[in-house]
Order: sequence, then C-alpha cells, then structure tokens
Amino acid sequence: MKKGIAASKGYAIGNVIIKEDEELVINETLVEDIECEKGKLKEALELAKAQLSKIKEKALKDMGPEKAAVFDSHIMLLDDPEFTGAMEMEIENSKINALKAVDSVSKTFLMIFESMEDEYMRERAADIKDVSNRIMLNVAGKMVGVEVENENTIVVANDLTPSDTAQLDKNKVVAFLTNIGGRTSHSAIMARTLEIPAVVGLNSITTSVNNGDLVIVDGIEGTVIVNPDEVTLNEYKAKRESFLKEQEELKKLIEVKTTTKSGKRIEVCGNIGKPEDVHKVLDNGGDGIGLFRTEFLYMDRDSAPTEDEQFESYKYVLEKMEGKQVVIRTLDIGGDKTLPYLPLPEEMNPFLGYRAIRLCLDRKEIFKVQLRALLRASIYGNLAVMFPMISGLQEFEEAREVAEECKAELKKEGKVYSENIQWGIMVEIPAAAVCADELAKHVDFFSIGTNDLIQYTLAADRMSEKVSYLYNPMHPAVLRLIKMTIDGAHKEGKWVGMCGEMAGDETAIPTLTEMGLDEFSMSASSILKAKQLIIEQN
Amino acid sequence: MKKGIAASKGYAIGNVIIKEDEELVINETLVEDIECEKGKLKEALELAKAQLSKIKEKALKDMGPEKAAVFDSHIMLLDDPEFTGAMEMEIENSKINALKAVDSVSKTFLMIFESMEDEYMRERAADIKDVSNRIMLNVAGKMVGVEVENENTIVVANDLTPSDTAQLDKNKVVAFLTNIGGRTSHSAIMARTLEIPAVVGLNSITTSVNNGDLVIVDGIEGTVIVNPDEVTLNEYKAKRESFLKEQEELKKLIEVKTTTKSGKRIEVCGNIGKPEDVHKVLDNGGDGIGLFRTEFLYMDRDSAPTEDEQFESYKYVLEKMEGKQVVIRTLDIGGDKTLPYLPLPEEMNPFLGYRAIRLCLDRKEIFKVQLRALLRASIYGNLAVMFPMISGLQEFEEAREVAEECKAELKKEGKVYSENIQWGIMVEIPAAAVCADELAKHVDFFSIGTNDLIQYTLAADRMSEKVSYLYNPMHPAVLRLIKMTIDGAHKEGKWVGMCGEMAGDETAIPTLTEMGLDEFSMSASSILKAKQLIIEQN
Repeated sequence: MKKGIAASKGYAIGNVIIKEDEELVINETLVEDIECEKGKLKEALELAKAQLSKIKEKALKDMGPEKAAVFDSHIMLLDDPEFTGAMEMEIENSKINALKAVDSVSKTFLMIFESMEDEYMRERAADIKDVSNRIMLNVAGKMVGVEVENENTIVVANDLTPSDTAQLDKNKVVAFLTNIGGRTSHSAIMARTLEIPAVVGLNSITTSVNNGDLVIVDGIEGTVIVNPDEVTLNEYKAKRESFLKEQEELKKLIEVKTTTKSGKRIEVCGNIGKPEDVHKVLDNGGDGIGLFRTEFLYMDRDSAPTEDEQFESYKYVLEKMEGKQVVIRTLDIGGDKTLPYLPLPEEMNPFLGYRAIRLCLDRKEIFKVQLRALLRASIYGNLAVMFPMISGLQEFEEAREVAEECKAELKKEGKVYSENIQWGIMVEIPAAAVCADELAKHVDFFSIGTNDLIQYTLAADRMSEKVSYLYNPMHPAVLRLIKMTIDGAHKEGKWVGMCGEMAGDETAIPTLTEMGLDEFSMSASSILKAKQLIIEQN
Repeated sequence: MKKGIAASKGYAIGNVIIKEDEELVINETLVEDIECEKGKLKEALELAKAQLSKIKEKALKDMGPEKAAVFDSHIMLLDDPEFTGAMEMEIENSKINALKAVDSVSKTFLMIFESMEDEYMRERAADIKDVSNRIMLNVAGKMVGVEVENENTIVVANDLTPSDTAQLDKNKVVAFLTNIGGRTSHSAIMARTLEIPAVVGLNSITTSVNNGDLVIVDGIEGTVIVNPDEVTLNEYKAKRESFLKEQEELKKLIEVKTTTKSGKRIEVCGNIGKPEDVHKVLDNGGDGIGLFRTEFLYMDRDSAPTEDEQFESYKYVLEKMEGKQVVIRTLDIGGDKTLPYLPLPEEMNPFLGYRAIRLCLDRKEIFKVQLRALLRASIYGNLAVMFPMISGLQEFEEAREVAEECKAELKKEGKVYSENIQWGIMVEIPAAAVCADELAKHVDFFSIGTNDLIQYTLAADRMSEKVSYLYNPMHPAVLRLIKMTIDGAHKEGKWVGMCGEMAGDETAIPTLTEMGLDEFSMSASSILKAKQLIIEQN
C-alpha cells in the first residue's frame, strides 16, 4: 500500500495508464532561416490555441465557468506580446531555433513570477509553465496531454497541469495519482470539481506501477493499493458502493432544513470569495453565506475597487441569495495578504500586526468606500456585516461610528439603505473570546474565525513547518474559548456562527453542535455532509 | 516647559553647563614622516588607556563591577590589532595623517557593526564610536569628556557616551539632559545606576538653554523647566524633598518581609540576566530570584556554554541567594533572540514560531546540557526550574521526561542533585492561562509572563509601531486570563508568580495583589516601591 495526500475523495478501481513526461531535449542552434523558425513558432501557437479552446469548452461543460476561466487566461497568454511576442523577437535577435527561444523566454517569466511575494502571482507561474510547455511540445511535434482509450482508467503521472486535468474524460478516467502536488495544488482542486478521486504527493508512483496494473485508489485515506488480492478488491468494491450511495443520500439533503434531533434549527452556510461562488453554495443546499471574504474583490488589480464596483458585487450576492442571510466581512488585508496598490509597513510578525480592522480604522478613506457600498447594497437582501480582528469593544464602536457617518452621507445624497443590517464581529483574537460576554451586549452576532483563533491561542503559526504540529483545533484551550464565546453570546440572546476551517471539519461538527453553535459556514462542497452530521445530533 | 523621555527618576534644580561637541575637522593629508604620525597615534592610544583606566576606577566605585566592565572592553579595544592595529597599518600603507587613519578604520568598523542583525552587536557600535572618538580627540589634542567645577550642575549635551556618563562627578552633577537617546540607551541606564535624574530625547535642549541658566529637571514626568519663577521653584523644591524622603523610606523596607494588611505573605523578587545581577537584587531587598533569563549565558559567544560553565553560573546565583528561592528559566531563544552558532529557520512570524521549549524539545542535545547543569547546581540552594512557551500539558511532560533522563545519567555518573527542585511553567501563551486549572494538577508553580501573554491575547506585536497602541496590560481580557491562572493554581494548592514587566508596574500591583498573586518578580530597582505598595494593600 502506498500513502500519499488525499486530494479528492471517493474510491476507484481501475487499470493504470502512465502519462510519460515527454522528454524535450532543448539545444540551442544558430539558424540561418529565421523565417522558418518563426513559422514553426506561429504554427505551434495556433495549434495551442485550438487545443486550449477545445479544453476550455470541455472544462466549461464539466466544471463550470469559474474553473474554465483559467483557460481563457492561457489563451490570452498566447497572444501576449510580452510573452509570445518576446519569443519571436528572441528568434530574430539571437538567430536561434524556436524551441530554445520559447524555453528561454518562459524561463525568464517563470523566474519573475516565482520570486514574487504575492501568492496569487506565484500561482500564475503554474499557468505560464503549462502554456510554455504546451508550445514547446507543439514546436517539437510531440503529443500534448493525456490520451485515454479504455474505461476504468487510472491516470498516473509525475504531475498534472491544469490543462491535463481539464482534458481528462470523466467517462473513462476514474481517478488519478501523481508523484508531486498537495491538497491545494491546481490539479487537486480540479479533481474535486470533477468529483473524481485523486491521491497526490505519492513521490514515486510513476515508477511503482506498470501500465495495465490494477489499482485501488482510496481518495479518503490517500492510499493506493497495487494489484490487490480478491478479498481486498471486494472490500473496496463494497466501500465504493456505500460511498456512492452516501453521495446520493447527501444530495437528498439539498432542500432539507437542518434541525438537530432535539429540534434546534441550525444554519449551514457557505464561505465565498467571489460573487459567482454563491451558485455553488446554493447548489449544495446552503442556508446562506456565512462569510464573504471581500478582500478577493481587492486582489489581482492595479487599484482598489470603486464604491460602485463593490456595490454591484454585494448586490449580486444578496439578490442571488433571495433573502437568505449574507454575512459580509469587511476588508481583511495585511498579515499574509497584501495588495500591490496598498503598501504596508515591514513588520517582524505580520500576523500580530497592522491588518484587517486595524488598517481600516487607520485608513478610513478606504474603509468608507466599502461601508458605503455595503449600505447601498443592503436593500437587496438580508445583510449582516462583520468586522475582522476585533480585540475589544472600542474597535467595534469606532467601526460602527464610521458606518453611521456613511449613513449620514448617503442620507444627504438621497441614497437608500436598510435599517435592518446586523452588525457583528469575528471572534478570532483570544481577547474577544475571553470577553465575549461583555462584547455580546453590543454586537448583533459573533462569527468565530478558528484559523486565527487557534494560531493566537497556541502562539503557533500554522504556516511555519517547525511548529505547525501545535496547530490543533481540538486543543482544550481552543474548545474552552469557543464555549465561552457561545455562552457569552447566548446569555445576551445573540447568535454565534463559525467560519473557520473547523466549521467544516467532520470530526469537530458534533462537538460544536453540542456546544450550541447556531451557524456553521464552510466551503460549499462540505455543506451536505455537515447537514447530515448535524441532523444526527441531539 | 520642555518634554522629553524620563530616563532616570528624581528631581534636580541646578545651573546648566552645556557640553559642546568638540568639532573635529578631519582632512586627509599625505604625510612624509610616517613615523611621526604613528607616534601621534601611539601617544593618543596611551593617553586614552590612562583616561579609561581612571574612568573605570570611578565607575567601579560609583556603579559597581557590572557597569564598570564596559570600560574593560573599551581598554581592550585599544589593544585590538584588528582595530588600532589597522589604524597603524593605514598610516603606513596609505601614507596619511593619523587623524584620517583613525577616522577611516573606525568608520569601516562602525559600518560592519551597525549593519549586524544581532542587537547586542549593534549596541557594540556605540562602544566603538566612543573609543574612536576619544582617540581622535586625543590625536587632535582636544578635551575629552565633561569638566564640571561647581556643585548643583546640570549637564546638557547632544548625547553622552558611556564614558562621559561614568565620568560625571556625582558630588557636583545633579542631573543631565540630552537631545537624543531613549529609556534604554547606554547613558539612560547609567543615570539610573548613578541614581541621578535624567531626561533624554529632548531634541533641541542644547540650543534652548544657555550656560548658567537655572533649570528644574523632572525625571519622573520627563520634563524640563528653564529659569522657573519663584512659585514653581518652591513647588519643585518640595517635590524633591518628598521624593528624597520617600527614597529614604523605601530603603527601610530592604530587610522587611512583605505582608499585606490582611496578613498574606507575598514574595517580591528580582529578574536577572547575568549571575552578577544577584547583588543588586539582594541590595534592594529582593526575596529571591523570580526569573533568571539564562539565554544571556548563551549570547555574545561563538559556541554554546558548556555544562560546566552553566553549572558554575547557576551555582553562583544559588549560593549568593543563600537558600532564597531562585527560579531559573530554561533557554528561551528564537523569536527576536538569535544565537550566531544556532541557525534558526526563516519564519514569517517568528513570535508564533520555533522558539523556547519548542526548540529545546526538538534539539534535546542542547536542552540536556542545560538540564544537567541545573540538576548539578540544585544542591547549592533553593532551585525552581521553569519552562518557557508551554502551550499544553504534553510539552511540560516531555520536558520533565528529559529532566528525568538527565537525572538517571547523573546518577550513573555518581553525580548528585537535589530531589527538592520545583518544576513549573511560564504562563505566557493564552492556551496555558485558559487551561491553568488542568495544568495546575501537574506543575509545582506558574509564573505569568505578561509581555508575551499580552501580545498573543491581543494579537498585537508591541514592537510594531502601527499596532503597539493595542498592547495594554490592563485590557479586561488580559486581567481575566491572569485571574483564571491564579484561581486555577490556588484550587490545586500551587503558587503563582509574575515575571513580566507588568509585575513591576506601580499601577498594576494593587490589582494583582487583590487577585491573589503570590510572587512578583521585577527589575531590582522596582522592588522596594513594589514592597511598599503591597504592604498598603488588604
């Protein structure tokens, strides 16, 4: 049995096809016939465009517009004068072969993107790699992508690019396995969208199996069994059956309201980053939006979104949710998230620094744009606004004052807003949990942000390899702080939600329900399972 | 009235003498007679040595061996072939005048030291500046230092070097004022040792007063009044009187055991960094050592201190304290403290990272050297050992196991240790405070480290300019966690100390006494005032 990282859940049994990485030998040759090399490049680019258009069509059908959008950016790269234009220039100026020119330009690009601070930009490097590799294979006349002929095929590869993954034929490919990658790598995310099991980070799976081998893929435990015996095979066939049956069962819960056995109604909501994400939440039976991370509206741009742009985004989400509650968190920038147009001071410990509400109260001109947009959108649905990184009452009151200022301004301008907005705070700093009973007298609701709460409570940065072992949602101190928050709120008749990863953690949901949590908010794909678990609770 | 930074408390009324910075015009001249320039340098160095020996003698008498030690290092610098040797070489090689040679070598040194990561090394730059300035003034035949003739003199300067400060004649100089500097600058520390009032960071005091002006120095508020009227003068004379009387009153408390009005005995102890610091704690009536920061034994060296070296340090402190309790904290390195011979991983948030007990449990070979030294020293006094950065029971138990291993080794080697050592933990991570009642079942005592506890509880790095305003020891959440810790310990019959800065904060001491804190540990100079405050409590 081989152990890797479970990237997409489910079970599959099938025969291996190994995707060999096409070996490209890239030599630099000085060429006489420059036009001929430029022609090769042009042909390769056109072929790439055709290939990518097909892949995009397929992705649109299999995975929806959000995931397909990545291939639009691939296609745009093919026309980018700074990218493919530079390749042509390189042929002309250095009088070298097309293959080498593509290689050298893409290497320069990769170096720039991989060294960027911004995580989003670093991720773009994967796209550049994918596209330039495609161009080079086309120049060299080699096969791009994975060709699968038989049903029940399990694709094994060193790594799969986004385009490789999108190309997989779901009717034939029942799972994939890779040497490298993690739970958040592109291919892992796509596997979850395609709903096919996948195990990644298996290190040497490409050399441990042969074409045609029968393998069992356990996408829940992250294990692979090669050429299993009859007993094991039957065991996993049964597992697969019951898994698929459970998936069917879960789908029945989409329209069901979540109520514990003792009759307590609990809201199971979704976390979103972009307005379009609401659809996935609705498709999965979400009772509302428990966390709209608005910083995504601010990212990947040259300047902050205007009041109108933000208004449109908030209005879209509120309208689509048709009166279901939408909790929108104000800008949580700083820490590990930065914006190109908002330079932040260098800090030794950014997680303990200038971020979120601290920045917003210091830069009210930025904060007010967002609050005005939220107020204006509030008439289109059921809006709750929450402030991140609140450590005490004063910050909440100051933020509320800014909101009141915005109201006064809007009133003067003859613009309308709802008077029924709920105003709450994230409980993610230990101080807020410890003083929850006092804060509850002033706020409309709490939403517990477990990711940060756990980090601060245990003084352990989960991104630091050396101490991430300390990051434990079930640490007694964390559980006590959660309980204090819930009890403090209930004493004042306020509701408490949770929007950190812990809210979607199947092992934590029963405990949290028992503690009295009123709302769970999680990634859309976890909603149905959470509903099922809660329904089984007292 | 001018406002600066209060650097050393007390009141002074006296007449100004401005210490003019000797202007040195340093031109480079090519010289024929190299031997003559070398002679000038040699003379200047010998004069410097004589001056520094005198200053050192004076410092030894006025300020004790610890503060005098800095001048040993100044004298050693005069003989350092890489420093003054390089100056001679520079004369010879570049055929230039002595003054320029001294200037250029010292500038190179300063550049190197000032750019160092290590705070201690950066501070060494001040010493290098002081010494090289002295050499240059000697070469140029100008006066070094401050000459004071009259009593009741207040020295006003742009800045005072360590040697300037040490040279001040306490019989004549009643206070000093400087343009630059902060509470932790060399001259501020020396003023507190000399017990003369000082206000630093006044920006332009040298140009705001004239020689002979009558000024009032308020070293408590950090203010200066130039040429005051009769009423103000009398007001401050009365203040000075009552301050001096209080100082006399406090001295009476040296031998007094601290007991509240209701009869509760409270230990008021001192924090130390180096073994020699025990004397100041004893001189100020400390009941014991509440925190020995052992990382200072590891700093400013090329390799870790050996077991024997550490043993000698611990033995020295235990013996000098003659049976009074000595709480020694095991190595707390990492975070903002690094060692040249112990490379640490780069972390985004070092305060939430690999440090203190986390590092010691990971690098047991380092940890065991210290534990063996502590065990061997334990027979020489009343030892309590505490582990820093404990987040839960498991870490404490693991650390205790390592200690048991060390005991078994020592037993095998026929080496003795005491069986009466107390084993405790720092409560400085919110999780430890929240779970204090559970932890108290297993440890012998707690010591609350408020500096870190406040930072984590409020998620605010107090070193970050942008958020340091959030760092508030009296935040209700901080006070609640302290109370939880005390109550948790008392329920199990264990004692609780506090060794963060809050323990010596006059505004916090009454609250902490009321909460039931059993032991306060602070810098030696705060002990007597704390005793007085506690005696007045119920």
